[in-house]
Order: sequence, then structure tokens, then C-alpha cells
Amino acid sequence: MPPRDPKTPSKAGYHHGDLRAALLKAAVELIAEVGLPKLSLRECARRAGVSHAAPYRHFADKDALVVAIALQGFEWLYERGKAAMEDITEPFERLQAYGVAYLRFALEHPVHYRAMFAMDPIECSQAEQKICSHPFELLVEVAQRCYPNQDNPQLAAVSSWSQSHGLAMLILDGRIGRDIIDSPQDAETLARQIYKLTHQSE
Amino acid sequence: MPPRDPKTPSKAGYHHGDLRAALLKAAVELIAEVGLPKLSLRECARRAGVSHAAPYRHFADKDALVVAIALQGFEWLYERGKAAMEDITEPFERLQAYGVAYLRFALEHPVHYRAMFAMDPIECSQAEQKICSHPFELLVEVAQRCYPNQDNPQLAAVSSWSQSHGLAMLILDGRIGRDIIDSPQDAETLARQIYKLTHQSE
Repeated sequence: MPPRDPKTPSKAGYHHGDLRAALLKAAVELIAEVGLPKLSLRECARRAGVSHAAPYRHFADKDALVVAIALQGFEWLYERGKAAMEDITEPFERLQAYGVAYLRFALEHPVHYRAMFAMDPIECSQAEQKICSHPFELLVEVAQRCYPNQDNPQLAAVSSWSQSHGLAMLILDGRIGRDIIDSPQDAETLARQIYKLTHQSE
Repeated sequence: MPPRDPKTPSKAGYHHGDLRAALLKAAVELIAEVGLPKLSLRECARRAGVSHAAPYRHFADKDALVVAIALQGFEWLYERGKAAMEDITEPFERLQAYGVAYLRFALEHPVHYRAMFAMDPIECSQAEQKICSHPFELLVEVAQRCYPNQDNPQLAAVSSWSQSHGLAMLILDGRIGRDIIDSPQDAETLARQIYKLTHQSE
């Protein structure tokens, strides 16, 4: 038996909840390297330095692990969006700040972002579905203050979400030319310009 | 040897080019049923009623077949967009017509649409890359007439593309609630409303 790497915590070395977090982190790194289809619980266990069986105490299978990554993503996105708008009162500036924070989140956490759209919320518990819908509900609140006279109160939020999601996916998939975007800073500038073009006070 | 189904054309029964079209059609149907990761050239050959080796005269491998589906998609999208704007002269009405045609294309041809974003144009020939960029170039033309005074002439086109792509993906991935969209007609109405909200003459 090879000696255990002293930096790798043993199964017993994890406090309650820490193993779960370590497995999530290992899974995100693994997906970034090999892609979602090649995610394996066994390899996550190896990277977290625990037995093959250990992950099953936290995740029933691979799909459950992806759901957990997605839920973490929805939580982080919600926190990021809220924080970005904290000191802003003008409605359109809030909407723009949310949009830029959304894009920044997607570009900084592409594995989480893709997991959020790879999993199906219908298969989640009600409590989990609530977590998935928090970022959108926040957006509805923000967008409604920009467009208070719309018949459909969700319209402006769907519009803004489509815009942000489309931009994030086009950038993540490398579809926007280097002549337009060459760095994360360019991406944020572009997002601001687009929001200014499409969502502005009349 | 089992008797051949008389409805299935034999290898000899295909005119030049028809086998390629038949294989593309079989591949699109197969992906719709089992998903892109389970696409197999062998099963496409079986469905087209030809030998296992026959597809290789047209496609080097599975990836080449996906690229061919994507290129067909880019061509169709371009044609659809052009046709939708044919009799319209007002710039913002043209932009909206393009956006609605884009969404309709994505919802009617989801396998093509996903293939367009699953393949990497960088791996294509220059002639093929041109086909991939036709729909966007058309959009740049249309959007520039709406926003003639932008410093960056591609900005409005990227904005409109993000919006359409985001909306298409959110609908295809089932992320927009049944309370908002319950039919393809609802989707088109939503697209029109969104375009009206975000892109309008000042």
C-alpha cells in the first residue's frame, strides 16, 4: 500500500459537512478538466482522498452530484446579484448591475453555470426548486421597478434573463469573435453597453 | 439473411447526394430520440438502409456528421431570416421579424440548433466558416440600420443575437415556466413582446 499523501485528509480527517464540500470541489475541478460526461464519483473520491464508497454517503449517484453543483451555483448567483445591487437605488442601474454580476458569475464559474442548465429542476425537492428560482425571482423584482406598467410582470425579467443567458453562453461557447471580446474585462464592458442599448429609462 | 424492407432504398437505390441527405435525416432523428452522445454512424446507416461502411464515403466520423447537421442549420437559419424580412422595410420591424424567425427556427429544429453550438467552427474549412457566419452577418446589416450611430457596429447585433439565443436556449431547456409559455405560439408572442420592449425606435 503506498503511503498516504500527508496533505490529503483521510476519511476520518473530514469534519461533518467538509467531505461533502471537498467532493463538490473535486467534482467541479474534474468536470473542468474532462467534461461533464466523464465525471465519475470514483475519481472524485480519489481526489478528495477518501474511499470509493465514501461519496455515496452524500450523493446517491453522479446526477445527484451535478444537482448539488447546480444548487450551489444558484445560491452563489443569487448572493452575487444581491451584493452587486446593494448600494444602487436607480432601477435601470440596478438591472444593469445585476446583468453584469450575472455574466461575471457565469464566466468565473462555468462548470457551475453549465450544471445549472444541465440539471432538471423538476426532479428536485420543493426546497431545492425554491433555491433554483431565487435568482429569477430577484430579477423579477428588479425588472418590475424598471417597467412598472407592463401587463405581464415577468416579461421584463424574462427579457433581461434571456439577454444575460444568451451572452454568457455565446461567450462560454467561444462564439463571439476575438475582435469583439478578448478578455473578461471586454466581456463586462460589452454587457454594460448591451444593457445600456436595450434597457434604459425612457 | 432477413428480407430487406421494400420501403428502405438499397445502397444502389440512392442517387448521388441522396444518400448524404438520407444519412443527415437519419442522424437528426436519431439524436432527437437518444441524444447527441449516443449518435452512432452504424445506426444511421441501418436507418438509411445501407451498409455499415457506406456513411464513411460522406462523413469521416461522428463529429463530421454533427458538423454537417450544424452547417445545414446555419444555411436554413440564414434563409429563414432573409425570407422573414423580405417585405419589411422599417428597420426595427425587420430586426423583430429576424428575431422571431430565429426563435421559430430554433424551436422547430432543436437538433440542428444544438448542433450549431456543439460544433467548433474553428475546426471547419474556410468555406464552411463562411456558412456559419452568414446569419450573424445578416443580423449585423439589419441591426446597423436600427442603431446607425453606435461606435461599435457589431454591438447591436451581438445584443440582438444574445437575446434570441438566450430565449431559444431557455425555452429549449424548459426553463421558462408553463405560466409564461405553454405553446410555440406563446413563444413567438413572447419573443415579439421582448423585442418590442428592448429594441424600439427612439
